[in-house]
Amino acid sequence: MPTYTPPLKDLDFVLHDVLQVHESTTAGYSDLDRDFTGAILDEAGKIARDVLLPLNAVGDTEGCTLENGVVRTPTGFKEAFDIIREGGWTGLGADPEYGGQGMPYVLGMAVNEMHVSANLSFNMYPGLTNGAYEAIRAHASDELKTKFLPKMVTCEWTGTMNLTEPHCGTDLGLMRSKAEPAGDGSYKITGQKIFISAGEHDMADNIIHLVLAKIPGGPDGVKGISLFIVPKFLVNDDGTLGARNGVACGMLEEKMGIHGNSTCVMNFDEAEGYLVGEEHKGLRAMFTMMNAARLGVGLQGLGQASIAYQNAVEYTRERLQGRDVTGAQNPDGPADPLIVHPDVRRSLMDQKSFVEGARAFILWSATLLDAGEADDADAEGLLSLMTPVVKGFLTDKGFDMTVQAQQLYGGHGYIEETGASQFVRDARIAMIYEGANGIQALDLVGRKLASGGGKHIMAFFDIVKTFIKENDGDEALKSGFLDPLKAASKDMQAAAMYFMAEAPKNPNAALAGSSDFMHLFGHVVLGLMWARMGKAAQDALAAGASDVAFYETKLATGRYYMARSLPETALRLARITTGAEPVMGLPAENF
Amino acid sequence: MPTYTPPLKDLDFVLHDVLQVHESTTAGYSDLDRDFTGAILDEAGKIARDVLLPLNAVGDTEGCTLENGVVRTPTGFKEAFDIIREGGWTGLGADPEYGGQGMPYVLGMAVNEMHVSANLSFNMYPGLTNGAYEAIRAHASDELKTKFLPKMVTCEWTGTMNLTEPHCGTDLGLMRSKAEPAGDGSYKITGQKIFISAGEHDMADNIIHLVLAKIPGGPDGVKGISLFIVPKFLVNDDGTLGARNGVACGMLEEKMGIHGNSTCVMNFDEAEGYLVGEEHKGLRAMFTMMNAARLGVGLQGLGQASIAYQNAVEYTRERLQGRDVTGAQNPDGPADPLIVHPDVRRSLMDQKSFVEGARAFILWSATLLDAGEADDADAEGLLSLMTPVVKGFLTDKGFDMTVQAQQLYGGHGYIEETGASQFVRDARIAMIYEGANGIQALDLVGRKLASGGGKHIMAFFDIVKTFIKENDGDEALKSGFLDPLKAASKDMQAAAMYFMAEAPKNPNAALAGSSDFMHLFGHVVLGLMWARMGKAAQDALAAGASDVAFYETKLATGRYYMARSLPETALRLARITTGAEPVMGLPAENF
Repeated sequence: MPTYTPPLKDLDFVLHDVLQVHESTTAGYSDLDRDFTGAILDEAGKIARDVLLPLNAVGDTEGCTLENGVVRTPTGFKEAFDIIREGGWTGLGADPEYGGQGMPYVLGMAVNEMHVSANLSFNMYPGLTNGAYEAIRAHASDELKTKFLPKMVTCEWTGTMNLTEPHCGTDLGLMRSKAEPAGDGSYKITGQKIFISAGEHDMADNIIHLVLAKIPGGPDGVKGISLFIVPKFLVNDDGTLGARNGVACGMLEEKMGIHGNSTCVMNFDEAEGYLVGEEHKGLRAMFTMMNAARLGVGLQGLGQASIAYQNAVEYTRERLQGRDVTGAQNPDGPADPLIVHPDVRRSLMDQKSFVEGARAFILWSATLLDAGEADDADAEGLLSLMTPVVKGFLTDKGFDMTVQAQQLYGGHGYIEETGASQFVRDARIAMIYEGANGIQALDLVGRKLASGGGKHIMAFFDIVKTFIKENDGDEALKSGFLDPLKAASKDMQAAAMYFMAEAPKNPNAALAGSSDFMHLFGHVVLGLMWARMGKAAQDALAAGASDVAFYETKLATGRYYMARSLPETALRLARITTGAEPVMGLPAENF
Repeated sequence: MPTYTPPLKDLDFVLHDVLQVHESTTAGYSDLDRDFTGAILDEAGKIARDVLLPLNAVGDTEGCTLENGVVRTPTGFKEAFDIIREGGWTGLGADPEYGGQGMPYVLGMAVNEMHVSANLSFNMYPGLTNGAYEAIRAHASDELKTKFLPKMVTCEWTGTMNLTEPHCGTDLGLMRSKAEPAGDGSYKITGQKIFISAGEHDMADNIIHLVLAKIPGGPDGVKGISLFIVPKFLVNDDGTLGARNGVACGMLEEKMGIHGNSTCVMNFDEAEGYLVGEEHKGLRAMFTMMNAARLGVGLQGLGQASIAYQNAVEYTRERLQGRDVTGAQNPDGPADPLIVHPDVRRSLMDQKSFVEGARAFILWSATLLDAGEADDADAEGLLSLMTPVVKGFLTDKGFDMTVQAQQLYGGHGYIEETGASQFVRDARIAMIYEGANGIQALDLVGRKLASGGGKHIMAFFDIVKTFIKENDGDEALKSGFLDPLKAASKDMQAAAMYFMAEAPKNPNAALAGSSDFMHLFGHVVLGLMWARMGKAAQDALAAGASDVAFYETKLATGRYYMARSLPETALRLARITTGAEPVMGLPAENF
């Protein structure tokens, strides 16, 4: 059975040594000293390890079942949810006005990393509730907020996100679900939604569906979409639950993974719904939810890579097979542990250097989100640019890393018993939902790159340049970190220049390289993160930190990333600059 | 439900336009004219499409069940096996002396590509039988051959390969299974084997296990391993079946995929066994089986990528979502098909160019196997060098391609209903069994590269160089094919030189780059294959071939591979030349 060790020291390192959150002027950050974040993360880690992890395999094996419209979640999920609720974890970042604790997003991200590592399927129930909470809070009327948010903050009621229909995924303009005004200010919602995570289950008193639908007579396409709250049970004015609404789960999907989460076909039959925000402006409201959700999905890529890596390390330390080619390391045993073999070590270093770089990236993103919420437009713009990279790059790579971890088990990795396969199967969904990664790449290159006249990408390059310049005289940092970062950043600039020159003539010349650019960007960000971590580790060692091995490990891991992963930027640039012709040259009928 | 179109024209193109098998002097090749291979492949394709494909999802959903020692295969498997047997497909390449048809291996490989594409799990039953047949034929006494082979050629009896034990995978020296001489020339085999594919099932009258075990008193480690035939039912001298032998399936494994194949824990309890070859020389005999098996596993990587690609093409042509950014392609419909989008096209081109390059690689390898069997030592040496590349590169990339194919379905790819997930889950095993891909890389760099004083790798470089030189004046071929091939081959030479210079001082400097080198090598081979295919397509067009679109598609697909996939060689070289330090620098306890 898989184990999980909360990465407390690593989280502390990123939060305090690298991001120095305790010194930030962002609203709410003054509370985030080492003792405080340490205490919170320690408790959150225990929940992950002791409550959520033991249910991960249970969720995978049992899955959810639908009987007479009732969805039963796996054994133990309900009890675990009670523990999460009682501990106040669901409202950590929520507005105190609605019963939340008002903690910065960055702290919630660190907490969530551990929870999502230990049990991705479980974490979707509170996670989606939080997303729905955000959209309602940002766009709904005070009346709706007062009615729904407090119970969602506590997760007594959970939330969902209803976008997809059978014929309509990314292209929401094709939507058919209808919302007819009922005459009393409410709407009657009718239609079918698919792939609705946590759409129906037995762990909450009520489920608050956020549903996109079209009000008849509105504009065609995405401009005619509105957002509605559709509760499973109607809520009386005194807050008690009323009649069952006209919404029901028609079917559960059989999936490759995340079996512990109920993925529902939801049928709406004149269900009572309440408009959130303005008519026909539903998409904008939904995007509020989706942007934070995309960071959360990027976190899933990191989380599954992290726990898969931890278990692969353990396995390769214990499993005795073959001898170190340079001389036996375990001469009294029948063989050496797998970890002595160079190709095993190469795989572990790929995983470790990704996981730790990704952790820094996602926590940095969270600080930008906090700053953006506090009206820092530059932070908001930069985060908006990087959101598709967090989502797309971290989930593509996160999945690859779970595959690499599984590979180290040999045949034992293919057997469900060891749990390595579940990490792979669960991680796979993160590349798909909340906008498949191809859509993230399209969003990045087709929209975000040029937004604000390109000022966000320029701001990113400036951050890289400034860091390199500030550390110009640091010889120790130069060859291992700064030089590779500079080279990678140059590749990225060349790619951006290529797009700028070619896209006006032929948009396909840029879009053909969109996935490559997303990966190029991701590598440069991780390169920057590692350079910053390298610097922080050097500084700690220079300041006489007691845990020398910890910081030296950071330096060695970072140097690995810079030397062996970052050079991928050149390949991505080479692919990008071949342009549209190789990709689009073959007529569609010749495939 | 997935569909499958046998790639008859592509197989014909590789066999005849590229490899020109009908002009080869290899024994048995004189029969292989276009009409003959076309007729065989047409029939084989029908079996794949009409018999095997419909059972692929059935096998995945039902799996195998064990009750009272009896394994039941999925509904329809037995009937399909009867069709395969009655059609004579199981003995296509087998020796006529034992009832086979004596066809060259290359033809069997082409047949198998289609069968393994349509149903990987099913194809393992005859596939493993063929492997066991090969080992017995090469190493057993005439008496054993006469007794067992004819029924194995027809697959009335199937075969297995029993190597792995719970504590002993790659490192066979740790083996504990024992073979005690019974005094009558036979042995009593006792021990437990795990991960035994087709170890027990209900589709054959008898199962012939090939089992590795140690005869007490023999040398330690792999030098004390012997190979035995252990039939499920003893065979009387008149060929009829006798008593049940002391071997039984103790458990079926729960796996990530290939559910249609029974993966057994096999318990041997003083089972009667017959020595194959000499005492303590079992490993050599088993390797006979494993080398051909490794080509067969490489074929599985290609096969799953091929069918996954075909279905992704179909899905992206039918699914309407979004609009072509350069203008609507389906203006009368609600949206354009997915295939208009550049990143979708990029993914399809990645897949298509890999699948077709891999097909050429594997059929070329099969011609080398045929030549080697006919005592061409150079061909045998070159194939021996490339076998880990066929296995490791084609299964790593084949798996990646199934993931890419699945991605194009969006959420629908994660749902088991579409079948995209099964291709991923089934393809995953090919990276693991028959020597995990890290072991293939170790075999390549640690052993094969330097074997014969490096003459096989020099022979490979010569083939590349000669091809480039022969086509020196061909301007059409030069920029699209020859120049990129030359650059990639130079990267590979630089990597080989690096290993030769560094390995004597520090073997880890080479082994740290072993997986990278395996991929580098694979890309150069596929580059060579595409250059040869490009040349063949040009020649066909110049000769006035009627199917212009087919050959132009080959050229466009090849140019894509050369421009966008082949440049990976530079990245692999960059990783390789960082040497041992980044990989091995971190002490094992610091992970």
